[in-house]
Parts: sequence; structure tokens; C-alpha cells
Amino acid sequence: MNFGRMYNDEIEKANVLVEALPYIKHFSGKIVVIKYGGKAMENEQIKTLIMQDIVLMKYVGLHPVVVHGGGPEINKMLKRVNIESNFVNGLRVTDRETMEIVEMVLVGKINKEITSLINKHGGNAVGLSGKDANLLIAEKDISNGDIGYVGEIIDINKDFLMMILENGYIPVIAPCAIGRDGNTYNVNADTAAGKIASILKAEKFVLLTDVSGVLKDRNDERSIISKINYQESKELLNSHFITEGMIPKLKCCVKAIEEGVESAHIIDGRIPHSLILEIFTKEGIGTMIVKENSYEEN
Amino acid sequence: MNFGRMYNDEIEKANVLVEALPYIKHFSGKIVVIKYGGKAMENEQIKTLIMQDIVLMKYVGLHPVVVHGGGPEINKMLKRVNIESNFVNGLRVTDRETMEIVEMVLVGKINKEITSLINKHGGNAVGLSGKDANLLIAEKDISNGDIGYVGEIIDINKDFLMMILENGYIPVIAPCAIGRDGNTYNVNADTAAGKIASILKAEKFVLLTDVSGVLKDRNDERSIISKINYQESKELLNSHFITEGMIPKLKCCVKAIEEGVESAHIIDGRIPHSLILEIFTKEGIGTMIVKENSYEEN
Amino acid sequence: MNFGRMYNDEIEKANVLVEALPYIKHFSGKIVVIKYGGKAMENEQIKTLIMQDIVLMKYVGLHPVVVHGGGPEINKMLKRVNIESNFVNGLRVTDRETMEIVEMVLVGKINKEITSLINKHGGNAVGLSGKDANLLIAEKDISNGDIGYVGEIIDINKDFLMMILENGYIPVIAPCAIGRDGNTYNVNADTAAGKIASILKAEKFVLLTDVSGVLKDRNDERSIISKINYQESKELLNSHFITEGMIPKLKCCVKAIEEGVESAHIIDGRIPHSLILEIFTKEGIGTMIVKENSYEEN
Amino acid sequence: MNFGRMYNDEIEKANVLVEALPYIKHFSGKIVVIKYGGKAMENEQIKTLIMQDIVLMKYVGLHPVVVHGGGPEINKMLKRVNIESNFVNGLRVTDRETMEIVEMVLVGKINKEITSLINKHGGNAVGLSGKDANLLIAEKDISNGDIGYVGEIIDINKDFLMMILENGYIPVIAPCAIGRDGNTYNVNADTAAGKIASILKAEKFVLLTDVSGVLKDRNDERSIISKINYQESKELLNSHFITEGMIPKLKCCVKAIEEGVESAHIIDGRIPHSLILEIFTKEGIGTMIVKENSYEEN
Amino acid sequence: MNFGRMYNDEIEKANVLVEALPYIKHFSGKIVVIKYGGKAMENEQIKTLIMQDIVLMKYVGLHPVVVHGGGPEINKMLKRVNIESNFVNGLRVTDRETMEIVEMVLVGKINKEITSLINKHGGNAVGLSGKDANLLIAEKDISNGDIGYVGEIIDINKDFLMMILENGYIPVIAPCAIGRDGNTYNVNADTAAGKIASILKAEKFVLLTDVSGVLKDRNDERSIISKINYQESKELLNSHFITEGMIPKLKCCVKAIEEGVESAHIIDGRIPHSLILEIFTKEGIGTMIVKENSYEEN
Amino acid sequence: MNFGRMYNDEIEKANVLVEALPYIKHFSGKIVVIKYGGKAMENEQIKTLIMQDIVLMKYVGLHPVVVHGGGPEINKMLKRVNIESNFVNGLRVTDRETMEIVEMVLVGKINKEITSLINKHGGNAVGLSGKDANLLIAEKDISNGDIGYVGEIIDINKDFLMMILENGYIPVIAPCAIGRDGNTYNVNADTAAGKIASILKAEKFVLLTDVSGVLKDRNDERSIISKINYQESKELLNSHFITEGMIPKLKCCVKAIEEGVESAHIIDGRIPHSLILEIFTKEGIGTMIVKENSYEEN
Repeated sequence: MNFGRMYNDEIEKANVLVEALPYIKHFSGKIVVIKYGGKAMENEQIKTLIMQDIVLMKYVGLHPVVVHGGGPEINKMLKRVNIESNFVNGLRVTDRETMEIVEMVLVGKINKEITSLINKHGGNAVGLSGKDANLLIAEKDISNGDIGYVGEIIDINKDFLMMILENGYIPVIAPCAIGRDGNTYNVNADTAAGKIASILKAEKFVLLTDVSGVLKDRNDERSIISKINYQESKELLNSHFITEGMIPKLKCCVKAIEEGVESAHIIDGRIPHSLILEIFTKEGIGTMIVKENSYEEN
Repeated sequence: MNFGRMYNDEIEKANVLVEALPYIKHFSGKIVVIKYGGKAMENEQIKTLIMQDIVLMKYVGLHPVVVHGGGPEINKMLKRVNIESNFVNGLRVTDRETMEIVEMVLVGKINKEITSLINKHGGNAVGLSGKDANLLIAEKDISNGDIGYVGEIIDINKDFLMMILENGYIPVIAPCAIGRDGNTYNVNADTAAGKIASILKAEKFVLLTDVSGVLKDRNDERSIISKINYQESKELLNSHFITEGMIPKLKCCVKAIEEGVESAHIIDGRIPHSLILEIFTKEGIGTMIVKENSYEEN
Repeated sequence: MNFGRMYNDEIEKANVLVEALPYIKHFSGKIVVIKYGGKAMENEQIKTLIMQDIVLMKYVGLHPVVVHGGGPEINKMLKRVNIESNFVNGLRVTDRETMEIVEMVLVGKINKEITSLINKHGGNAVGLSGKDANLLIAEKDISNGDIGYVGEIIDINKDFLMMILENGYIPVIAPCAIGRDGNTYNVNADTAAGKIASILKAEKFVLLTDVSGVLKDRNDERSIISKINYQESKELLNSHFITEGMIPKLKCCVKAIEEGVESAHIIDGRIPHSLILEIFTKEGIGTMIVKENSYEEN
Repeated sequence: MNFGRMYNDEIEKANVLVEALPYIKHFSGKIVVIKYGGKAMENEQIKTLIMQDIVLMKYVGLHPVVVHGGGPEINKMLKRVNIESNFVNGLRVTDRETMEIVEMVLVGKINKEITSLINKHGGNAVGLSGKDANLLIAEKDISNGDIGYVGEIIDINKDFLMMILENGYIPVIAPCAIGRDGNTYNVNADTAAGKIASILKAEKFVLLTDVSGVLKDRNDERSIISKINYQESKELLNSHFITEGMIPKLKCCVKAIEEGVESAHIIDGRIPHSLILEIFTKEGIGTMIVKENSYEEN
Repeated sequence: MNFGRMYNDEIEKANVLVEALPYIKHFSGKIVVIKYGGKAMENEQIKTLIMQDIVLMKYVGLHPVVVHGGGPEINKMLKRVNIESNFVNGLRVTDRETMEIVEMVLVGKINKEITSLINKHGGNAVGLSGKDANLLIAEKDISNGDIGYVGEIIDINKDFLMMILENGYIPVIAPCAIGRDGNTYNVNADTAAGKIASILKAEKFVLLTDVSGVLKDRNDERSIISKINYQESKELLNSHFITEGMIPKLKCCVKAIEEGVESAHIIDGRIPHSLILEIFTKEGIGTMIVKENSYEEN
Repeated sequence: MNFGRMYNDEIEKANVLVEALPYIKHFSGKIVVIKYGGKAMENEQIKTLIMQDIVLMKYVGLHPVVVHGGGPEINKMLKRVNIESNFVNGLRVTDRETMEIVEMVLVGKINKEITSLINKHGGNAVGLSGKDANLLIAEKDISNGDIGYVGEIIDINKDFLMMILENGYIPVIAPCAIGRDGNTYNVNADTAAGKIASILKAEKFVLLTDVSGVLKDRNDERSIISKINYQESKELLNSHFITEGMIPKLKCCVKAIEEGVESAHIIDGRIPHSLILEIFTKEGIGTMIVKENSYEEN
């Protein structure tokens, strides 16, 4: 019997599925926190594919949690209302007036756009800010001196988030937190997402970025590291091989792993269906950081 | 035995409680939709008392749902970004750019302020826009011609709202709805609140206003009608006794009663603890509209 | 804006409610054991108000448990059937024949009267004796020598009582207990109620008496102590200030606190709605005994 | 192999069990209402065996409900307190004072004795009067003119009784009912038990009497009818064969069948273990009244 | 940006997954009855792939039910014990002795082999015959005269099968049924599987065969009909285009559709992963029979 | 009154029931593992009575688990297919071909016969082999050297068995186990049953044998030991009084007790209703082995 000619394509398809199905079983009911930002937020086509991937993940039983950044919209609006930006060590000094505009844009514009886009693709998204149900509790971040209402997440309302997830909804979170002092704080979206993943003991924390992943050789896009463990990551951070932009991203992943997340992923949000590929294929598409190297045995 | 002198105050207190307790039992687990807007939103002290009342209502087992309006903040922001306002029949023509600002202010500013204020007073509020979980579905309102993104609510996500309520949270809803066409629509807060009350089959729909209630004689603030039934309300609407500003409010209440709400209330939000008084005392404080006059027997 | 003249009464009402509502929340689902006896059992009007209070407590979510005494009915019946009473140290020698009459009157008359009176006011009372489901287990009290079938409670059927409470019923308990030896024992109603409160880990144990509460100066009815802690109570018991009649009552309260009841209350059952006032107002109406002085922070 | 001599007794035993087990399965979870009264209430040894039978029934999953009569105790007490008895058509005129004594004896003495006796044999009995949870609602019976507080049951609190049953308790009911007029009524124990069985849709209604059952020939104790259907019973009632004393008993059974009880039984309470034998053996011991003759097929 | 060269394979993979995921969601919790027989049962490699597919189906939430045929093993055994085979119209006359051997081979050999093979690949299979829990009830099939213990299924124990499925097990069923007359009946595996699918209201009934599917032109293996509706199938059965061997298979499918199965599939069991391909890809691999042509809209 | 003559039989019956009912309560919901084999499997009448007993046990709330042996059927079949038997130390050398026949007979014939017989008598039996749901896991038994596929149970799928039991089914287990090496193993039915009882923490483990029980004097059938404790059993095993055939049976019981079974019973399966008699009567019919002598107090 020779089916070779006739069924090559089908066999290919079957192999993809046979590879993916065990992942679908393994990840069923697990939480995946996705930091969504950068260029993947600006290109309409990529945006659509990412929303589709998130909806598909929910379809097959995962619990995606989306945390988004701000992008150029904030700057545009600040300019429009004539608020000047002052910087310290490259960080924006955030006074109360600035904070108000940041919150309006993040919560009242970007968050709602992502929420409706997911819903348009068949998902059931709920846009949330850190004030809703005291979702994100922050304290002032003074590691760079007093630069205003810039904060760091110290706790989240886990029960509320679990209620949202277990009832079939996809939470979309704007990184505006509430302080115990009653003030509103702007928090960095990457670290916010990492912290949420840690507290939820997420299966995966995925950083959608504008790069292919962590490279062995910063000059060769093809030298991407497909998998690295916690120990190796820390060594890499101390070496000179890693690009400057990657340092905070990798640190953020290492911290999430340290605090209980199963694996962290730095992937290129610009590749079509990067989320689906990273999660449901053996090779993945970017860099996966794990605690130890034992993952393959699963 | 004569306790007269000594215990007069206590007997007074006891009477208030003995009057209130059956209401507390009767309303336990029932939904009360509160439209919050107007001057009650501007005075800091009144605002605090209203938030306190809402939290107390939740404490004793009711399910308050807050729907808020926009107030002067929207106008301030539109001016700040130099968007001119055009009006048709007194209604603002809402183009896409205006809609964006309206949404940002309602959802990203006012909604978040109310949410945190309730949380500060011990409640557990969740701020929501009509896009979250497709909470408010609208269609274009063309009753005044095409004046842009002005809509009317045609459906709500009742399951989502019930989940929020039954898990102990207080929903705070901004009247920005999503159209089946994917567009964002601005909806009138009074009619939105009435519609939400109808679909939830609420026990009560409360309009917090800047007037004492419905007056028999528009020149006498003390001629307030304490209770009126559906039939009488419709007759009153056809008479000349009612003030012009009251007409849409009363119509809104009549419609809610028609669609299944147990009772509607027009009360003066400026009176301290007006909500608590209207709900837990026999006399109430404003005007109650009921289907029929049989309520007292309960 | 001046509402002063017009709304003074309403503001007063609102304040009573705002004061009471947090108590209602705090006590929801909690057990309150009420010893009902003395003059409050003889005056028809007072009796009615107390039944009303008990029903209201159940309405708003508390779980009242009523333990009643015997009063003059027992003596009347003993006389009628020509049973002579002998006393040792002021305590009645209770032979088998006396016990039979005591049981008939307590269980077959007084208990049923209270039960129907509560039911008449809208409650759902179930009259119980210690024999029902082995509710009250006693052993012979020989602290005053052998004076017959006088016992002390050593255990209760907590599961049975919780079933009654959680299904919406109000238990009304006659203090006739069953011994492990199969005999019927008469037990003191105050100590029985205290023991029941202890084993149920009740929130409150309330002794309805014929006095205002514990007085600082036994000659001044107005010198009532509104709140006293466990330590202070014990000191007071060793001092000379307390009236003789109050000593066993206070001891009974101190023991209940010792064994896990949150607070004990000695209140004047003759004051209208004394129960409601003691439980739902900050000041209360009698004397509250607590473990430590930290209660106000709740 | 010959086991004949050795195992005859065992084979006998086995046969009894093999006969009984299907009944145990069939009746599991079913309600059996037992009217307990007459001589079976006076002989100590018989009393003990009946209590044992009731406990065994509960053990193997049935739900016995006991309704008891008064017996000579009431007369004894009335005499002791010098209340004279007047009769109309052989029925006692029950004024308020008589009613009080009747209630005290039934509820405060007889009911408690049965309750403790069941508990002593390992059961979990709860003694109840018609006032508890408004268990028995009566209206005045004027079929014999106005003879005072004599009533007929018109409703029972089925939910309460089911709660008692399903939580493993055995209700023991004294036939004192509460009127909608607030008065206490004395009701006939046989008809009360029949009515309770009807409303509970009991599997069986058992009348423990002082006779062997229904006889074909009133002069021959051995002419007992083992099984009779509804139609035949009605015919028998119209014939002359039945003894006068049996007429109301049989009528009571016929009515219970009419109102939904599966089968009614008139058995001789004086025979040791009559309850167990009637329920768990094919032949039974007294007379079983069924709707139709199809029972054997079960 | 050009990922073309680099990511072509990944995009291919992603597309397969994006195509499959909605099917996984759609079929979650649905029942798929698979008739397993023929050559696919003889080739070790194909057997392994089919077992793997069945396990994967269970992994992602479907409920596969396997019904197997007998194959050459039965003949081998009959020969070994010298039982001669007589045929009527090509059907084996099945006397009691033959039936015993058939049952031993089907239930005690083939069924156990399939069961352990599934378990070896990570599934949780339970081998069942029609006698277990009276799973398959048959009556004698006399459509070909009396040819012995050949039966037709008339009922199944659906509750038992659902219990097996819902607890995570994969039932593997041998087509030996029990008659109401107590006899054992041999039933045709194809029709047995179809009947089981009908009674379970299965989402899919899949016939694993030795042919590619239904052909338009019996001489062209490539003329396979990918999808056909109920009406068209019946017409096809009346035409001359269909091969003789396909007739009973197609009839069996048509009947299953008629009795409530959502879709029936005739696929080539010899193609690797044919099950996975048919279920999780849009094109499928064989012939799908549906009620109406509306399926694509899902 | 003299019922002596008339009711002697009834009183006898009542006594049997009064004796049995507490056992029925005590054993409700408990597991009884029954090893069924030997002569009791060959006599049709005895077989029927045993099946009836098993069904009755399930009726009244026990959970019987049946483990059966093979008997002469295996030898008959081996002979028929000309497989010669070789023995080492009296144990059959079981090569792969022999194993196949053993499995076919045990699983495909004997197991199915018992299963349908129980079902015919009103039970709900499910025949299982050790391969179903990996029910019995074995490892090779090399205590007698390598004699082929002879194994010992090392684990069972307890969850699966509990699911079967709790859903009202009676498992009938053939002692064919699956090895972790994928091979099929034949296991001794007695020790298999004992192991299953141990892992299930069964209330009882009953060995149905062809002897009366353990005898004090091997020459006197009437010297049967009715009850013996663990310690005494071990001493007995070391003495010379016990018959050779009884040694492995008693050892098997002692091991089950050691591993947590409440009591083990060796009874004569040939006595009618031996199961019912042993379980529901005080005396029993065979020998009961218990941990300690305290059983009577229950």
C-alpha cells in the first residue's frame, strides 16, 4: 500500500496535531499571563492575529490573562493637553495631572480597545484597572528617588481574578494601581504582568516583544536560545552577550520563575500566531525560561 | 413603673429599628439600581455619604448597582482638547473624536473615582463600561436624526452582572455601550439605568436628582408626592402640574415599572443619607412610583 | 442649601440606621442565647414586645435561642395538687412527684405558650425540652447535699440545635434535662442558658432580668455600668458594691465569657425593645461583659 | 452430603432473612406513621418491645413517625385537680381549663416518656406538639355541636417534619393542635395520625390496637383478614360482620388510603414485635388495607 | 518586515492549529463512537496509531467509545476446536457451542488486547461485553430464518456507559449481547456500533474500514465524496454507482443519522492518524454523512 | 392473654429479624470481598443461592465484590486444544499459549457466566479482568522458580472499583492481571481476593470453600472453631491440628487481617445461604478470624 503521494499533506497535518494535543491536555485549566505591548500593539493585522490566538487559548481550556502597556497613545494625549514631560534617569516624572491623563488613556481608551477587539473575535473579555475590586495594590517606587506617582505592585485581588477566569471571561488589565494611601500609581506593564503571574502561580508568563527572543550572539538573529534554565539565565545576565534592551525583560522572567511561575517566555509578537506556536509546539518560536531542565519529560 | 423620662431617646431609637428591620428582611438579596449624577456628584461631603449608604446597603444584603452620569468633567476635557460642541435640539452631535474623549473621561476618570471611593469606604466596587463582557449592547438612536454615536441600550449581559453581584461586588457602570456594528455609543445615564433595572427585574430603581421629588404644586417644595401609582403617574405626565425637568425622569420611572421593576424612586441626592431613608423607612424621603397601591400590605 | 428645619427628624432616623446597619452585618449568622424569665414573663405587653424583638432578630439574620424559666406557674400547680414544698438552703427539695409536676408545667404549659406567642408574631419557634434528641444532658447537683432531682448541664446536642437554627427555626428550651442515669432533672434556667451559650460558642448571652443592669452604686439606679471586661467583673464580684441578687447573674455571665461566649449582657427586660436596643445600638441599654476592652474597634 | 440434621435451624433463619431483605430494600427511605396507644402503652414489657421495633425500623432506613394518644393519665390528672368531666354523645366537653390539663399531660408527660424511652433504646427521638413550628393546624370540630376545644387537623408543617426525618430523628407527636384562631385544640390521635400519613404520602399507616386485626367473624379471633383492598373494606364497613369498635379504625384506614397512603395496617400491639413482623414478613400479623390487590408482585 | 523564509514551517503549523482548535472546543465533551475492525486490526503499526489517536481524543475532552469486531481470530479458534461452520446466505449458523467459542475469543482475547493496548498508550480503557451491567440487550435476528444465536441490539444500558465515560474511562465493547431470554447473542459489530451511537446521541459515528470512503466512481479511488447529506445518501443507495461492500456500511450510517447521531464517517483505517485527521481538520480524510448541508456554518 | 400457641412461629421470625437488623445497620456501606470457587461453583442449585445472597447483600446496602477462580473449565479447554500441562512443585508451568487459553476461559466464559447469573437474579454485575482500567497490577511470582506467567498482585485501581461500587454495581473479577512489563499474568484467586480486600480496607473477606470452617480436631467436622483471633490463628498455623488444605486458606485470612481487613471468614459454600447466615447472624456458620476479641461489644 502506498499513500505517500496522496496523503503527504495530511500526514503533515496529523503530525502537527499529534504534537499539539498533549500540550492542550497538559495546559487545560492552567493560567497564562500575557504581557501585550510594543509594535504588536500598533500593527492592525498582527493585533488581530494575537486577539485570535488569545480567544483560541480560552477555547481549548487555558486561562489567558492579558496585561497591556500604553504605547504612543499616552504621549500623544499628554502633548494634546500641553503637559510637558520631565525625565529622571529616563523615567517620566509623574505628577498628579500627568497621572490623570495616563489613567484616562490606559483605562478609558487602550484597555477598552483591546477588550472590544477580543470580544469581536468571539472571546469574552473584561477590561479592568487596578482600582476595580482593588485588583492591583501598589506602593510608591522610590528606587529612582521621588519621581511622583510611579509604583510597584505589592498585592493583587486573586479571588476576584479567579472568579473572572473560572466564569469563562478573559481579564484585560491596565497597569494602573491603587495605593494603600488612596493614590493612583502608574506601574511598569512588564513587571506588573510578572507579579500577577507570580501571585496567580501561573503556568506560563509570556512577554510579547519586538525581538525574536534571547540571542546567544547579539549580532545574529538566528542565534536564538530556544530554552534556558533559571541558573543559566542568571549567568547570562552577568555576561556581556545579552543586549541592553533584553536585560530588564529577562530579569522580569527570572523573577517570575523565582516566585513560582512554571515557565516564562520571551517571544516575537510580530510573528503571526506566535502565541499559539510557542504554547502548542515542541520547538516554540522564542525563548523559554524554566526552573530546571526537566521539562521535556512531561 | 415609669421609664418615660429616662428612656425616651432609646424608645425613639427602638422604634426606628423596629420600623426598619422588616424592610431589611424584605429586601435581602434584592437588586437596587441607583442612577447617580448631578449635584450629588459634585459636593464632596454628599458624595461621601452616598458612598457610605451604598456600602451599608450591600452590608445588609441588598445588591446595589450604580450607574453614573458624566457631569461637567466631559465638557472641561472637550474644551481642553479644543473640540467644539454642536447641538441639535439641545443634544450634542457626537462624532468619533468626541466619543473618544467622552469614553476616556467617563470610563477612565469618573468611573474610577466612584469605584475607589466606594472601596475606600469598605465596599468592593468594580468599575465597568458597556464594553466589558459586552455588558451594554446599544443601537444607534435616530429619534433626533443622525447626531452621531448616540445610542439606546437594547440588551445587557445579565449573567455577568449577576456573577459580580452574587460574589459580593458592587458594579459601577459607565454609560458607554457597544453596538452590534462594533461602534462605541454614548447613552443617556437615566435611561441606561432604567433599562438595566428592567432587565435585572430590580426591586428598586432609584434616581438621585437635585430636586425633592415629584411635586403636586411646582411652586411649593413641600407639596411633594410621597407615593404614586403607575396609572396616576401617566395621568400626571399628561397634566400641566409637573415641571419640565421632571418629565423625562418620571417617564423613565414609568417605563421601568412597565417593564417589571417593583418600584421606582425619585429622591433628592443632596439630602444626607437619602438612599438609606428612602429604602429603610416607611415614609421615605422622595417620591415612590409603584405599579399598584397595594404595597403597604407587605 | 438648608435642610435643617425640614429634615431634622429624618436625619435622626438616618443616624440610628447608619449606627445599626454595621451591627446587623457583623452579627449576621451569629447565635444569641436569651434567658427569658422573671417579671418580663408576667406582663402581657412586655411579653409581646420581647417576642417581637426575637422575631426581628431572626429576620435580620441572627440566630436567637430562647431558654425560659418557670415562674409562679409551678408553685400554683404544686399547690393545686397538694404537694408540699420543703427547702434546704432556700432550694426546693425535688422528689420524683415534684419533678413530674415541674416538667408538666415547664414543658407542657409555659414552653408551649412562648412557642405559640413567637409563632403568632411571625416567627417559627420550636418548643423543646432537654429530653428531645437528648438536647440537655445533666448530672445530679450535689453541691447542696442530696435535694433530689436537681441537676447541672454537662453536655448538649449541638448538632440538633444547629439543624434547628440553620433551617430557620427559633428553639425555645425548657430547662428540664435528662441524666445519663435515665432520670429527669430540673436545672436552673440562668446557668442552663449560660452553658448552652458556651457550648454553641454564641456571639452573645443575654440575661433578661428585672433590674437595669450592674450598678456601680447599688443605691443609684442611674449608676449603671454600660460595659465591663472580664477582669473587672471578677474584681467587682469580690467587692461589696454589687447587690446580692446580681451576684449569681454576674457569675453566670463571667463563666460564659470564660468558656468562649463573645459577650454577655444583663439587661432590664421591662424596658420596651430592650433586646433590640442592646444589640443594635452602640450604647446599649444594660451592662455588657466582654473578655477584653477591644470591642469598640470592630 | 447431608446437612439436614445439623443445619435445620440455620436454614430456617436464612429463610426468614431471605424473605425480609427485599422488604428492607423496598421500604428504605419510606415513611411509616405509627399510631401508638391503648394497652400497648400500659404494659411495660410490650412498651419496651415497641420502642425497640421503632428504633430497628430507623436503623434499616425507614422513617417512623410516632403519634401517641393519651390514655388513662389524662383522667387521673383531671381528677387530681378536681375538674369534672361532662360528656355529649360520649365525647368529653373540653373547656379551656380542661384543655390546659390535657395539654400538660400529653405534651409534658406522656410525650416526654415515649421520647426518652426511644432514646434509651438507641433511637434519636424528638417529642413535638402541634404548636412546635405550627406542626399541626386544626379547626374546631362542630360535627357533635359545640363541645369546646376539640379540633380536626386541616394542615401540617410538612417541611419541618421532613427536616426532622431526614436528619435521622424520630418525631414523636402529641395530638394537640394550634388553631388559626390561636386556640389550642385537642384532636383524636387515630385521625391525627391518619391525616399526617396522608399529607406525608406515607408508605404505611399502622394502627397499634388491642385486637388481632379485622375479623371475618367477630366471634372467631382466628378469622382475621390478612389483606383486604379498598373496595372490599368499604363493603365490609356497610356489612354487619365488623365489630363496633373496629368501625372508626377501619374508616380511618380507608380514608388514609383514599388520600394517598400506600397501605394501612391494623395490628395487635400486644403481640411481641408486631411492628417488625407486619412490615418485614410476607404474611404479616394483622390486617393490611391496600388500594388494589396488586401488591404481591412487588 | 520579512519572516517569509525563516518561518514558513511555523506558519504552516500555526495554520493547522488555528484550524483545529475550534473543532476541539466544539467537540469537547461530545461522544464519538468508533467501529474498529478489518485490516486496521491486523497491521501492528496501524493498530498502534489508532490507539494513539483514541487516547489523544480523550486527552482533549472528547469521549471515544470503541466497538470492535472479531476478525480472523474467531475462525482460527473454531478450527482449532474442530467446530465446522455452516452458512446460510453467507451468514454463519451459530449454535450454542459456536457461540461459546465466539464469546471466549471476542471477550476473553480480542477485547482484552485492545484494552491493554490503549492503556499502554496512556489511556484508561475498560473492556466490556454486552453482559456487563446488561450493557447490550438483544433479540434474536430472524430476518434470515433461524440461524441460531444471532441477534440485534434493542437497548443499551446508557447510564452505565455514561458513568464510564464521565469518569475518564474509554469503553471498549465486544459485540456479544444478552437476550431477555437469558441467551447470549452474537451481533454484527457495524450495526451494534451504529445503534450504540444512536442511543447515546453521539456527535459522531466513525466506521474504520479498508476503503478510502464512498466513491462517486467505483473505479476511481480519487473520486471520494468528502461530504454528503442524508437525502443524497439515500439516493446514492438506490443508484448503481456504489460498490456492493459499501452498501451495508452506508446504510448503517444513514440509519444512525436518522436516529439522532450528528454525523457519520466512513474512513480508511489504514491511513496513519485517520481518526485525528477526520475529526480535527476541515477537509477530513474520508466521507462524512450529515443530516443537512448546514454544517460548515458552525 | 396467651399467644403462646398461636404465635410461636412469628416470635421466632421476629427474633431472627431483631438479631439481624443491627448487623444490617452496622454493615451498611461496607465492602465485603467474596472469593467464590470450588464445588460451590459446580452445583447449579448452590450457585443460584449464592448469587441470590450476593444480590440481597447489595439490596440492604453492603458492597459485595466477587473474585472467582477457574475450576475444571480451564483444564477441559486446554485438553481440547491439545496443550499439555507440565508441573513444578504441583504448580502448572504457564507459557504464553497456556496463558492465552486460561485468560479466554476465565474472562470470556466463567466471568461472563457469573455476571449474567447475578444480573438474572436482579443484581447489577459488571464482569472485569485485571486489564480493565488496569484493575489488577501484578509482578512475576518467582518463589517457585520461573514457571512462566504466574504473578502476584502488587496494586489495584481502587478508584475504579469504588466508582463501580458506589454507582450500585457488583464487580465480578477474574484473576488475570497485567504486569508493568505489559504481560498477562495468572494469579491465585484466593490471594488475589485477599489482596483486593486489603487494599479496599474491606469490612469482611469471605472465602467460600468446600469445608465447614477451621476445625479444632481435624477428624471431627463438628469441632468447628466459630471465632478465633489473629494471635490464636498464628499459633494454630504452627500446630499440627490444622489440615493441610486449610493452611493456605488460613494464611491468606491472617494476611488480610494484618493488612487492615476487619474480619476474615472461612465458610462452607455448600451450605444454602451460607453468606447471609455468616453475615447477618450472631453465631455465623463457619470460622471468623478477627484482629482482637472485642468484636462482640459492637
